[in-house]
Amino acid sequence: MDIEEILRKRASIFDNALNGNLTPRDPKIFYDALRYVPMSGGKRLRPIIAMLACEVVGGVPENTIPFGVSLEYMHNATLVHDDIIDEDTWRRGMPTTHVKFGMPFAILAGDALIGETYRMLSYMAPPELNSVTYKELIRSIADAAKNFYEGEALDIEFGKRFDVTIPEYMVMIEKKTGQLYYLAGKGGALIGKGNRKEIENLAKYGLLFGLMFQMKDDLLNILTKQSSLGKQQIGSDILNGKRTLMVVHTLANADEKQKKKLTKILGNQKATQENVLDIIDIFKKHGSIDYAQDRLREFSQQSKELLTIFEKSESKDLLTELAEYSVTRTF
Amino acid sequence: MDIEEILRKRASIFDNALNGNLTPRDPKIFYDALRYVPMSGGKRLRPIIAMLACEVVGGVPENTIPFGVSLEYMHNATLVHDDIIDEDTWRRGMPTTHVKFGMPFAILAGDALIGETYRMLSYMAPPELNSVTYKELIRSIADAAKNFYEGEALDIEFGKRFDVTIPEYMVMIEKKTGQLYYLAGKGGALIGKGNRKEIENLAKYGLLFGLMFQMKDDLLNILTKQSSLGKQQIGSDILNGKRTLMVVHTLANADEKQKKKLTKILGNQKATQENVLDIIDIFKKHGSIDYAQDRLREFSQQSKELLTIFEKSESKDLLTELAEYSVTRTF
Repeated sequence: MDIEEILRKRASIFDNALNGNLTPRDPKIFYDALRYVPMSGGKRLRPIIAMLACEVVGGVPENTIPFGVSLEYMHNATLVHDDIIDEDTWRRGMPTTHVKFGMPFAILAGDALIGETYRMLSYMAPPELNSVTYKELIRSIADAAKNFYEGEALDIEFGKRFDVTIPEYMVMIEKKTGQLYYLAGKGGALIGKGNRKEIENLAKYGLLFGLMFQMKDDLLNILTKQSSLGKQQIGSDILNGKRTLMVVHTLANADEKQKKKLTKILGNQKATQENVLDIIDIFKKHGSIDYAQDRLREFSQQSKELLTIFEKSESKDLLTELAEYSVTRTF
Repeated sequence: MDIEEILRKRASIFDNALNGNLTPRDPKIFYDALRYVPMSGGKRLRPIIAMLACEVVGGVPENTIPFGVSLEYMHNATLVHDDIIDEDTWRRGMPTTHVKFGMPFAILAGDALIGETYRMLSYMAPPELNSVTYKELIRSIADAAKNFYEGEALDIEFGKRFDVTIPEYMVMIEKKTGQLYYLAGKGGALIGKGNRKEIENLAKYGLLFGLMFQMKDDLLNILTKQSSLGKQQIGSDILNGKRTLMVVHTLANADEKQKKKLTKILGNQKATQENVLDIIDIFKKHGSIDYAQDRLREFSQQSKELLTIFEKSESKDLLTELAEYSVTRTF
């Protein structure tokens, strides 16, 4: 089986768990809104990382299912509310929750998904986790969520600025994208009863994996045509004004004329594909794409080194392959 | 000390706990938005009920502080998001969170307050609660939240209907208003290690108290001039189209002509004070105000009966006085 097939197979475990837990009830429109994003697919990478982290420390993989579902709820809650904040109308080829069900139900659906995150955790059977570990897990997920909101707040602020530095960018992305993956690695290892060092390494692995995934997404967005807003286009992130590592790196190095061009196109929904290609050219001139790709490879290397403390096993191999796949994937 | 003074004194315990826990950090605007509603006062009735429930079963009142703060966070989260959903611009004499900080930060602030609810619970020291009780508390708060969202969803739907029945109304208000008070009584009794019957009675007491508080608020809104939207007026609920017990009772009994008048004025922000007084007259004609007052007295009686299982104590006296105060208070 190739890695993508393995991932799909693992994802289906969580598709089923989510479906079983989200039975529709009254009021119908509320439960339809609540189920809408969790049931629309997704790669389920956070739960998969958690399960692999549990396996690699010698734990029982099935014990991570409620925790994995919980991570997925939290992630989906952030997507639903993020789409309102960013005024996005389209996700995974479908209208966003607030477009389909209206703002009030989208707010409630996101809130309820946050609640489901914690309820799900309460279903873990006592023998799996002692009271202290359980509290640590609850606190860790609340901490990850808080970090996410801080990251989101920074992201909103950065959207108004053209002088965001690379260290500032890294703080933002570690909070906004890294935290739930950090928690996936940490929580999986905790549930599997890993030792202190194992938990630490898997938490860091998770964090790096999250950063890589985001950086690769951002690279693919400007290097290949992607389906966005119902059409195939290149660089939709540029039209949306997203501060990616390439944007931040270029802004730190561009001259006044290039900066002016960048500020004019960045976030301009009416910019043409030609405008976008001009910006990508500026990225290339400043080596910003190479810079991002180098960082990506560096993170991949670091994450593989974190795994050297483990004996050879199927789960270790998979975690290693995932670190590789984060660099090589083409969609 | 009279009851209001006692309540203020008790509330200040939670004001301090909230303030200590919500230290401002970066990004500033996010933490300003997060602190805005919790720090703007409020009666802290949910934590007070929880503390009294703990006391009356013989528990240590201080042990309920993290739980009480947690209840307050959840309540405040619902206020912040509710104001967005209802497009309210004014609360407790101040602009609402989304008016002051903008919609994105109001959404994030509400989300983060939900997260704080669960984080706070993770700070309860192990000796106070065994693992099973702790999980029950986490699940109960997630259940209460879910019920609240269902109630809110029903409330949104009812806002479009003129045929809401009294049983439908009771289901909605039990979910939307009753659940957090139910949890306050239940959780306080759980933390105080009450027996099964004591926990059950205090949960029901909490539920009834919540319903009474809401019903009394709704009555005061049409019986006395109140500060609303920055001015002193009567019946702002009518302008806002709120489905109160009086509205539902009247709609079930009004003739076609009165119904037409009601549907014209209910939710019409441009209606005059004279229009509003006309509606209140229709309420009176159908005995709807008396009906609500009778139900209120009935609930007060029921809630006092639930307390008869307890020995005489200061906390029992206070809970009894609160049941009385819910009927007699004038603001």
